[in-house]
Parts: sequence; C-alpha cells; structure tokens
Amino acid sequence: MTVRKSPQVGTPAGMRVLNQRAVLDRLRRGGPATRPQIAKDTGLSKPTVGQALLDLEQHRLVRPIGRTTAGPGRSAMVYEVNPAAGHVLGVDIGRQRIRVAVADLAGSVIARVDERNRCRTAGALVRTVRDLAVRTVSDAGLSLSDLVVKVVGTPGVPRDRTLHHAPNLPGWERPGLLDELETSLGPDLVVENDANLAAVGEHTYGAGRGVDVFVCVTVGTGIGMGIVVDGRLFRGAHGAAGEVGYLPYPSDVDSTRGRLESAVAAESVVASARCQGLGGVKSARDVFALARGGDTRALDVVRDEAERLAFVVASVAAVIDPELVVLGGGIGGNAELLGPPLEAALARLTPLTPRIVAGELGDGAVLSGAVAMGLAAARDLVFDRRGTVTL
Amino acid sequence: MTVRKSPQVGTPAGMRVLNQRAVLDRLRRGGPATRPQIAKDTGLSKPTVGQALLDLEQHRLVRPIGRTTAGPGRSAMVYEVNPAAGHVLGVDIGRQRIRVAVADLAGSVIARVDERNRCRTAGALVRTVRDLAVRTVSDAGLSLSDLVVKVVGTPGVPRDRTLHHAPNLPGWERPGLLDELETSLGPDLVVENDANLAAVGEHTYGAGRGVDVFVCVTVGTGIGMGIVVDGRLFRGAHGAAGEVGYLPYPSDVDSTRGRLESAVAAESVVASARCQGLGGVKSARDVFALARGGDTRALDVVRDEAERLAFVVASVAAVIDPELVVLGGGIGGNAELLGPPLEAALARLTPLTPRIVAGELGDGAVLSGAVAMGLAAARDLVFDRRGTVTL
Repeated sequence: MTVRKSPQVGTPAGMRVLNQRAVLDRLRRGGPATRPQIAKDTGLSKPTVGQALLDLEQHRLVRPIGRTTAGPGRSAMVYEVNPAAGHVLGVDIGRQRIRVAVADLAGSVIARVDERNRCRTAGALVRTVRDLAVRTVSDAGLSLSDLVVKVVGTPGVPRDRTLHHAPNLPGWERPGLLDELETSLGPDLVVENDANLAAVGEHTYGAGRGVDVFVCVTVGTGIGMGIVVDGRLFRGAHGAAGEVGYLPYPSDVDSTRGRLESAVAAESVVASARCQGLGGVKSARDVFALARGGDTRALDVVRDEAERLAFVVASVAAVIDPELVVLGGGIGGNAELLGPPLEAALARLTPLTPRIVAGELGDGAVLSGAVAMGLAAARDLVFDRRGTVTL
Repeated sequence: MTVRKSPQVGTPAGMRVLNQRAVLDRLRRGGPATRPQIAKDTGLSKPTVGQALLDLEQHRLVRPIGRTTAGPGRSAMVYEVNPAAGHVLGVDIGRQRIRVAVADLAGSVIARVDERNRCRTAGALVRTVRDLAVRTVSDAGLSLSDLVVKVVGTPGVPRDRTLHHAPNLPGWERPGLLDELETSLGPDLVVENDANLAAVGEHTYGAGRGVDVFVCVTVGTGIGMGIVVDGRLFRGAHGAAGEVGYLPYPSDVDSTRGRLESAVAAESVVASARCQGLGGVKSARDVFALARGGDTRALDVVRDEAERLAFVVASVAAVIDPELVVLGGGIGGNAELLGPPLEAALARLTPLTPRIVAGELGDGAVLSGAVAMGLAAARDLVFDRRGTVTL
C-alpha cells in the first residue's frame, strides 16, 4: 500500500495541505457546513477556508450541495464530503459463503453479492472471488481499477505474504496464494483475518460501539476472535492474537486444527448430537432448531457447547479482561440458547465475568468490518493522492 | 493525583511553558548540553533557550554543571536535568518480603530497605509499610512529604479504592484498606498490581526492553502476569488483565484462589514434592535445589510444574500472541530448569510458541517497576507544579 507523505510543516504549501485536511475532517465529522461555519469550527480564517474548499472541490473531495436560505444576511453555499470521491471493496471468504460489497466513501453500500462457496481448490476459490468482485463492481457501475482499497477477510493469519493457521480452506495456506489473490484483484489489497474483521464490524456498526476493551468471538465452521482496544484492532506480535482455536482445551484429539477449535466447531456439535441419538441432524443449525423446539437431547448438546465456550470466555477474561464479549457466527449467533448455560458455567470457572451479548450484524459482520476497514484507509488515501490521481 | 494543566497554546505565557518543556525534554533525552546545542536540537532561538533555562534553573529543574573548554569561541555553560528536582518512593509488598526504595529523578536509587514480611493482619502490614517507608526516606535524607509520587505494588487488583482478588494477604481485600494506606503514606499514592509492576520493571530495565507486545509471568506464592503493549501497561477493562491465576485450568479444586493459581503456586510444588516422597522439603526453593542436584523425583515435580506453566503460556499465546514471555518470581526465576520441559509441553499444546526467557531483575522486578512508574509520573508532575511548589 502507498506510504503516506506528511505535508512539510512550516512551508506555505505545507500549510495549504494542513488547512485542506482540517476543512475535510470538519466536514467528515460534523456533516455539511458553510464556509463561515467551517471557519468558526476550525479556527481558520474565512479566506483560508475558502481557498481550502476551492482546492478540495477541484480534487472532487468535497462538493457544494445548495445554499442556506434561512437566517439573516446573504445566503451561503453549503458543502459536504463527496461520497463519490472513492469506492472500496469488501470481501468475506467463508467456507460456506462468499460475500462481496462495494461502498462509497460515505459508507453506503451500493452493490452487494452473496453466493455459496462451492470451490474445492484454492485456485478455484481465487477465480471465484475475482469473478464475484468483478460482478459486484460492475453492478456498482465501476471497474476494479476504480477502487481505492480492497479488503478481503479470510480464515487464517496473513504473515509474510502467506496465510497461516487456515486449515479449514483446502490449499489456502499455500505459498504464493496471497500473490495470486493480489494479481487477480489488483493492487491496494488488504488481507485480514475474518474474526478480526467481524470485531471491527461489530465495533464500528454493531454491539461493540463505544466499548474500549472489546472482543468478538465468532463460532461456526471454526472459532476465531477479534480484539479491539481503544478503537484499534489488536493483532499481537505475529498477527495471531485472538486465535482462540489454539487454547489448550483438555482433549485427546490430535489434529492440525487447534484443540479448542476441534472441540467447539460446528462439526463437533453435529457429532455430539449424533452421539445423543439425533441421527437426522445434518448441521449445527439443525441442532439449534431442535433445541429451540424444546428437544431435550438437543438442549444437552447446546449446554455442552456453552460449557466449552465458557472455557474460551474464562481464558480471555483472565488474560485481557474485556468489558464486553460479543458472540457471532453460525453457532455463536444462537446467543439466546447459549447464553444462560454459558453464564452458569462461567460463574463456576472464574470470578472474572465480562458482559456477553449477541452480535448485531449476524452473518454480515465480516463484510461490514471489511468495508469499515477499507473506508478508514480510503479516506486517508484519497486525500494523500489528490494531487496525483484524476478522480 | 493532581490533574495536569495543559499550557494555553497561543498566549505568550503558554509559549514560554512550551519552550521550557521542549528544553527540559531535550536535556532528559539527549543528556547535558549548552545553550547553542539546545537551540540547534530544538529549533528554538538562542535567546528563547536562554530564557527557558533561566526559568527552569529558578525552579531547580535544571542546573549548570560547568563550562565547555574545548573547541573554538567562548566557553559555554553546560546544563543538565537536576536529579534532585524530585524523589519517588517505590514499595513492593509481597507475602514473603517487603521492599522499599527511594530514587531521584535521574533514576538513581539513593536508599533501599528489604525486610521479611512477618505481618499477620492487614493493619500490621500497613503500619510496617509506613515504618519501612519512613526509615528508607530518612536514610535518603528526606521526609515522606518530600516525595513527588509513591508507587506501591501489591497482589490484587485495585479498583474503586478497594483491592480485589488478593486472597494471599489476609485482610487485604477489606474496604477502606487503600484509604488507610494513603493516610499512612500521604497523598500522591499510586497502588498497582505487583505483576503489572514486574512487567514495567522488566520492560524498562530488564529482559523486555524494546519489545512491543510483551508479557511478564511472575510465579511464586501466587501467579500473576503484566502485559506491556507499545510501551504502555495494558490493564483491561476492570484492571484484571493478566490475572492468569483464574485461567480455567482443569481441576477439581474449589477455592477462593483461581484454579490455575491453586495448581501452579509454591504450595502446590511443595505438596507435589511430598507426594513424590520428598518429605523433607519445606519450600519450592528446596525442590528446585534438589532438582538442580539431579534428584529425579524433584525433576519430576519440576517437569509437572513446567507443564502447568505451558498451559498458561499456551492460553496467553492464543489470546494476545506476545513476542516475548518473561518468567519471574521465586518459581518462575528457575528458568534454566523449567525452560526445556515447558517448551516441550508447549509444542505439544499449540503451534503458537512465543520466545520464553528468564527475567533479568530477579526478585527486584516489582520494586524496579514501582520506581520506573513513579519516575514517569514524577517527571511530569515536577514540571506541572513548578510554579506552585517550592522545591
């Protein structure tokens, strides 16, 4: 990704850049405003604000949207941030589904695709992601090269241009895979762990808004966790923070997957249900549906799952003491069934008991997080590139 | 603690404060310097630096230490930060020992006391801490009221003026205890978890220097962990981050102490040794001494302890992915014996294996951390108070 150039402070050109930035930030945070309002809010003089608006309008980063009519004195032009100054792509690559969205700089999603993941090889998955991205971008009236930033969420930990700890997608840990993805989607690509993006999504738009020490545990095909501290994603020293699938859960299972993940993921819920004599269940979803209907064997399976999740929450509480734990994913999303036995088990395990709630974004959390992360990066990039790129 | 007042930027008085601050910071970071050197390094004019030095000297925050003799031109006065501009007190309250130190603003420890903790009640402990503090301060030629900041390290989590999770010191969780401590030591008192201070100590002066995502696990009478991220202590939402004694270690023990702590603390090492037929051991220290001499039963006990510590490290790695784990405390300090079986057990549990090393500060880590935290606060406080306090 492009390195941001700081304006040279103290030079007239540097001052002009700083003033543009101040005016743009004011419009982003405070919404549409006139030149006098911006001058008042930023402390800059009206002529300085006027010049900055002129510069920003020329680069199509702000646009006039009409004139004030009420109040005394002459009417004044009202400016807003131009939502079309840039677009971002968000992608959620899951084992079950692939989701793609294009959003403008105001955060409005203007095209969206959601398809079943039928790919059996990494190569097919890369091609499918590209096809879906091209289709979504085209639905938005754009092409891939129009995008300022693309953020792809995937299981695993991206490090040194390879994905690690992604056993649930065949071939996905292969060296060169991320290069193929970049070749097929183009530059300015960010690849991020899906559980991290779910946490960013819930923190930006969902149940974690305004929470300083926040984790989002996603339980479905696998288990993952994203940590947001003071509004920033915490990734750890090697990007593996929140890889709770590797918690040392007491188990005899020897597997390339983590001990806890093997015990807690969807497959294990289905296997437990079958052990309970529920031969007909095909998915964890079936088990939760039966439990919701009052089936006592299914309720036993749910309780056991809740107790394993209590192990996760107790571990996380002892290490980072979060204020709030959000549960998401295909399994975690059943918080109304999992919650009571989880909290009972937690109270037996530890005196450190954070608040636990269901995610608000459902299965759109990862995609929302990808868009949110893309927007944060794009808002800086469109400003930094305003001199070099014709928008 | 006193709230810092920011200088009013833009006013002449505000500018003068900013300039003093810039000159002081230059002397702290870059060591002794002349007026022209400071002007060059800060970008301020020589008359401005001269005025700032005059102001700072008047408040006894800097002092002249002689004149340059070498080089062309007139000789110039050399200034340094005045180490005697303030003093801090550090205290380490452990179940076994109480340690107290007084340091000047340059970080030099000028008096130190280390005594056995024989107190059986919280009241006696508060009195003893005060007596030792008075004695140490007096050895330094000062009185308690001369201290800018006092930092006390203790087991437990201070919150809402009460200590929580401190079962190892009798009566220490009682409401009002921290008020008694403040009454007996005076204002400007900071009470901090001891494992947090050990981490600050190892990060400032020891094995964790320069490490961005760093934890220090202290194992002795109990177990605790401090987390330092990007140079700052991470406390979690309620101050309980790093309370790894509450990790959900598989165990039938029902106790007010955490499950993991009950399994891993010194008492448990002694009990295991007795089960192995080592009836004569009185302390964990004895067990490690026997192991060091090659006693196979003691070595078995050490290996079991290492495996329990591997559970801690694996849990911490899955949650925050630290770059480095420092082991300290009476038990953790035996890293040469614990290391190999710990790393072997860790490799069986998880693919996430951080670097593990012994602490460099031994049993002085908490005290060093208390002094380091005190110095960081005092350096700001002496500057902020320079107009109001006669030093």
